[in-house]
Amino acid sequence: MFEDKFSIRTKTMKRSAIRELLKLVLNPEIISFAGGMPDPSLFPIKLLGDAVKSVLEREGKRAVQYGPTEGHQGLKEELIKRLETRRNIKINENEILITTASQQGLDLVSKIFIDPEDIVIVGLPTYLGGLGAFHSYRARFIGIPLDDNGMRVDLVEEKLRVLRRGQHRVKFIYVIPDFQNPAGVTLSIERRKKIIALAEKYNILILEDTPYRELRYRGESIPSLFALAPRDRVVSLYTFSKVLFPGLRLGYILGDKEIINQLVIAKQSTDLCTPPFTQAILCEILKRDVIDEHIKKLVVRYRDKRECMLNSLDKYMPELPDLSWTKPDGGLFLWVTLPNYMNTEKLFSKALEKKVAYVAGSYFYYNDSGKNTLRLNFSYPTLKLIIKGIQRLGGLIKEEAE
Amino acid sequence: MFEDKFSIRTKTMKRSAIRELLKLVLNPEIISFAGGMPDPSLFPIKLLGDAVKSVLEREGKRAVQYGPTEGHQGLKEELIKRLETRRNIKINENEILITTASQQGLDLVSKIFIDPEDIVIVGLPTYLGGLGAFHSYRARFIGIPLDDNGMRVDLVEEKLRVLRRGQHRVKFIYVIPDFQNPAGVTLSIERRKKIIALAEKYNILILEDTPYRELRYRGESIPSLFALAPRDRVVSLYTFSKVLFPGLRLGYILGDKEIINQLVIAKQSTDLCTPPFTQAILCEILKRDVIDEHIKKLVVRYRDKRECMLNSLDKYMPELPDLSWTKPDGGLFLWVTLPNYMNTEKLFSKALEKKVAYVAGSYFYYNDSGKNTLRLNFSYPTLKLIIKGIQRLGGLIKEEAE
Repeated sequence: MFEDKFSIRTKTMKRSAIRELLKLVLNPEIISFAGGMPDPSLFPIKLLGDAVKSVLEREGKRAVQYGPTEGHQGLKEELIKRLETRRNIKINENEILITTASQQGLDLVSKIFIDPEDIVIVGLPTYLGGLGAFHSYRARFIGIPLDDNGMRVDLVEEKLRVLRRGQHRVKFIYVIPDFQNPAGVTLSIERRKKIIALAEKYNILILEDTPYRELRYRGESIPSLFALAPRDRVVSLYTFSKVLFPGLRLGYILGDKEIINQLVIAKQSTDLCTPPFTQAILCEILKRDVIDEHIKKLVVRYRDKRECMLNSLDKYMPELPDLSWTKPDGGLFLWVTLPNYMNTEKLFSKALEKKVAYVAGSYFYYNDSGKNTLRLNFSYPTLKLIIKGIQRLGGLIKEEAE
Repeated sequence: MFEDKFSIRTKTMKRSAIRELLKLVLNPEIISFAGGMPDPSLFPIKLLGDAVKSVLEREGKRAVQYGPTEGHQGLKEELIKRLETRRNIKINENEILITTASQQGLDLVSKIFIDPEDIVIVGLPTYLGGLGAFHSYRARFIGIPLDDNGMRVDLVEEKLRVLRRGQHRVKFIYVIPDFQNPAGVTLSIERRKKIIALAEKYNILILEDTPYRELRYRGESIPSLFALAPRDRVVSLYTFSKVLFPGLRLGYILGDKEIINQLVIAKQSTDLCTPPFTQAILCEILKRDVIDEHIKKLVVRYRDKRECMLNSLDKYMPELPDLSWTKPDGGLFLWVTLPNYMNTEKLFSKALEKKVAYVAGSYFYYNDSGKNTLRLNFSYPTLKLIIKGIQRLGGLIKEEAE
């Protein structure tokens, strides 16, 4: 009815498959490995209540008034302090912008950089909320396959060379270096250095997305791209959705001050400011210096869940030559590759019949490939349900193989 | 440094003059009639604290988890109920979308409708956050002057005829019918009906923005465009920023279900969802059925402030043939027109020297006109400061006239 009125982008924007799936799996009988939700039993609700009380007593009237687009002053100061002490990243106040979680970061970065037909280099597969944001500004994608050490950086230079020859405008490389969504793989330090060198050589930006970074269950932390690169080369997105409360929708962007300045201008017309009330609450929580303890608890719990899912896969998946899965060092997801002749989109309705849900891997590819892959989330379900759910999934795949 | 990388829109996006001004006037010695902030002494902080407590007790874990893009189910139900009982507007669940306040409504509507060079018809002057949002999607503007009865609808048809002849794509008419920002004028019922008839005849949409609607100090309420028009003709924006807490950033959009569906898709890639935590709090506040009482209190207080500002203008403004101001029936602003030879942008630094601030009217025009106008806000300052501030402003204008 409004076809003659909608913008060109509207005709190409697609509903997020995952957000639609999440509605399907509200049925409590279905064991869901779809979604990417934190374990609700670990939400520190009492801490939140106490923080709200302090905020309302101390700065209630300010917290419910309009605030600066750049973000809550106290919160910015706490974040700058934490970045320096915990991550060894020194930034100035004009190199940070508070956002309504990192999805807004993806939107704003797209808004200030992407013109129609501009190219974004992405992982094959990659986070579908990233694809959605870039797509809504009509970007084109060039995909780089992943292996166990993350994006195949050795394949990037050849692409960049061809693109430069064709005078294509490459706007940035989108990288989720730690425990990538959806594949669960981590970019090695060598590849981090290499991709930064390439970005320097070809003068393109890197957009780094770090939602899972603090949720590491094995091995040593690897420096972020933002920490490794010159300040003007990387824009980095952070969120509190996985380590605290997704329902507060809080995150931040780090970048060169000129980029942050343009992001602030874009944000002004997007929502004026992130809610000062939720920002004041987060500031209070950070001041209490309990979040590291909380993250430790998450790591212990999720490490168990990861272990449990890997063990269950070993136990219940049929022995097939082309069946494999990743063994992530952290994060919320692992990635299963089935024999080529299986199609996880088609399999999904059978999975629902067996009362188990996943996300078909093809949604994480812009080019409709990955039909034989699927993503499993292990942070949300209980240990008991992980075992039971993988048993159901293993049964389904066994039936399909016969 | 990043000129070769920024998108075309980035080069044309401008910093919001008002949000920059707000920083200038943080100096407590300056009496500020800039901004559009509610009176902080009226914020019901205790109500907020009580509502948070109930939410955390009853649905804490759900309120801090991810939520549906469409909005918090309970909040949507409360809003639908209130719209029916208080505004006589009957809508279905698929005709409403919760937003991070109405600025996000402006952004999302722009995103799904505006292609570069598309035309938006706006008031001369109009809300600069609207201009900013449309501009960020590279709209072009056609301006319609206002008089004491709002937009000069009699001039709209001629414009539409010319635009149709030129095969221009007119996407919508942006209207703030009640106590318009910045002019404070209200669109008469006759003009509301006329503009809807024109929109029907020329098959274009109306974007209605209603932030001040419930803050009426004199006269009878006039039905909204959304209530008067066929469902597929008007998209209407609402916010709780002026009647409750701007710092929670909550509002909603009403529109045809096909439009709401596209807005939901656009919102998915913009921020996934409005914070479920703040939505649950607002839902709880609405359920307590105290907001009408609260709005009554606001109306009493703001009516006094409006009265006070009008009286002070009568008393302190010099008698000049070309000096006039509007007498709004509601809202937060009135609009002053100075003699043609005065320039309120240039006058601004002198005003700051006299420790009084306003917003120069030219910021509300896309075409750099209105140099001799200014906007005054009366909701934020106290009665005492209104008198003192207008005295300062009157003195300044008297000096300029001599």
